[in-house]
Amino acid sequence: MSVAGVGEFGLIDRVTARLTYGSTVLLGPGDDAAVVAAPDARVVATTDVLVEGRHFRRDWSGAHDIGRRAAAANLADVVAMGADPTALLVALCVPTDVATDWVEELADGLGTEAAGVGASVVGGDMSASPTLTIAVTALGDLGGRAPVTRAGARPGDLVALAGRTGYAAAGFTVLSRGFRTPRLLVEAYRRPEVPYPAGPQAAGLGATAMIDVSDGLLADLGHVAKASGVAVDLTRDAFEVPPQMRDAAQALGVDPYAWLLAGGDDHALAATFPPATELPPGWRPIGRVAAGSGVTVDGRPFEGPAGWDHFR
Amino acid sequence: MSVAGVGEFGLIDRVTARLTYGSTVLLGPGDDAAVVAAPDARVVATTDVLVEGRHFRRDWSGAHDIGRRAAAANLADVVAMGADPTALLVALCVPTDVATDWVEELADGLGTEAAGVGASVVGGDMSASPTLTIAVTALGDLGGRAPVTRAGARPGDLVALAGRTGYAAAGFTVLSRGFRTPRLLVEAYRRPEVPYPAGPQAAGLGATAMIDVSDGLLADLGHVAKASGVAVDLTRDAFEVPPQMRDAAQALGVDPYAWLLAGGDDHALAATFPPATELPPGWRPIGRVAAGSGVTVDGRPFEGPAGWDHFR
Repeated sequence: MSVAGVGEFGLIDRVTARLTYGSTVLLGPGDDAAVVAAPDARVVATTDVLVEGRHFRRDWSGAHDIGRRAAAANLADVVAMGADPTALLVALCVPTDVATDWVEELADGLGTEAAGVGASVVGGDMSASPTLTIAVTALGDLGGRAPVTRAGARPGDLVALAGRTGYAAAGFTVLSRGFRTPRLLVEAYRRPEVPYPAGPQAAGLGATAMIDVSDGLLADLGHVAKASGVAVDLTRDAFEVPPQMRDAAQALGVDPYAWLLAGGDDHALAATFPPATELPPGWRPIGRVAAGSGVTVDGRPFEGPAGWDHFR
Repeated sequence: MSVAGVGEFGLIDRVTARLTYGSTVLLGPGDDAAVVAAPDARVVATTDVLVEGRHFRRDWSGAHDIGRRAAAANLADVVAMGADPTALLVALCVPTDVATDWVEELADGLGTEAAGVGASVVGGDMSASPTLTIAVTALGDLGGRAPVTRAGARPGDLVALAGRTGYAAAGFTVLSRGFRTPRLLVEAYRRPEVPYPAGPQAAGLGATAMIDVSDGLLADLGHVAKASGVAVDLTRDAFEVPPQMRDAAQALGVDPYAWLLAGGDDHALAATFPPATELPPGWRPIGRVAAGSGVTVDGRPFEGPAGWDHFR
């Protein structure tokens, strides 16, 4: 059965029947608006949109994974402020020939990723459109913590990373060249493993700046450097090339450091901490903040080969 | 200059430079997420998406008006819960040949409509897309009031309306037939005049149910009747056909009551109140709640001509 067959209200009924609601949801879908708990009296809010052909392909990823990734991209932005995600709202535009099953699986993916961090899909809108488009808004609660912006890094601070980088970019390259393996990389592209708890944890540890790594580590730390008015120097040896990535890089003729340092979409978290901070498991040091501007690797600009420009 | 010429980050810079931020904005655009005041410790949230060709046409409306309407559709949902709007987030998908001027005017329209109710555009995302799409999320604060849902109407309650109905539908019909006048109707379609203060006011007066009239009064009161488990009977004489609408209806061969009772997109507010409620200026009685189900006009189903099915 296609989306056109059940209509907008029928589709909304099918989707909302599949969703579950956590304790932050005071009023769920079905009214003019939802009501979500905001115990901190401040709400963190962010929106990311995924467009078919630019951000995902239905022949590369299943609906469930696309839903998880759409949710993850937004939930990662919330935890990168040091907040706990509470709710998602989803505006979904679908061509009329898309199967209702596909939309239901997408909703399941969104709901599953949200539930993993205690958040719920609380509302949304649907429309027919020639272009399959998923716009997600995520809300979060700061739990009394100050938001960790991009602007607080100070010379001498540690730069640390939680989560993986380069895996999704490697998976994207693999798929782009027509391959479906190594599975580890392709799966990383399809469904990022976001280190959600590390965000609020970093805020609690006094992180001076934090960012979700979606454009690539060099680009995103470049945003931190610019906002904070500092320089960031990364240590190349802090990055280990995992065996599958090394093999894929060799087979495809890519410098794996271009993936590790410049590949986006794994939604790792990068943060800066006061120099004496004892990093807990999950966070590992990858460099230092210094006076100046820009991002370097071992003191020099990163002169990546092919991969680098590709990901800018 | 086209959107492709300035690129995503250039376009975001241009747009954010034009925005202004009210007192509810604790952290505006430019970080992973915005931070918005939620003094009530609950946040009202809603999302509506507009797709070119389905919800708007660039040859029928200017960018500023499209921006205002996209904002209004969402802000109306917030006030229909009895809340005060605080913030908008906007996911914008634009074909690469759209002029940056057009996008800047759209942003101005969004910002202007938001500022009119004390809200601000606090974040968003942009992507190229073959289909121009505007997904807006609005947030609001309940200021200590209980949210007014669709589910609280009780037999005996007054049914009341704030704002206009039928104007936008009439303007849409006029434009669909290739005309550009009467101006009053065409402008109503392009830019709804939402009675924003009436929403929180109704909540303060003890409204038992409330809804934003976007699908048409009969359809939307049908949602209230269903959610509340009651019937709604409207009084036809409560609706006056304004002269321009009467003339246009005659010229186009349409029953003006089809516009008034079944036309959407003016974003009026319909609410039910306890029988003894003294309605303040801006709210006018249009019917009664009774035991039963469904919506009638003067005790009978509304048998609209052509117009009715068109708007379902």
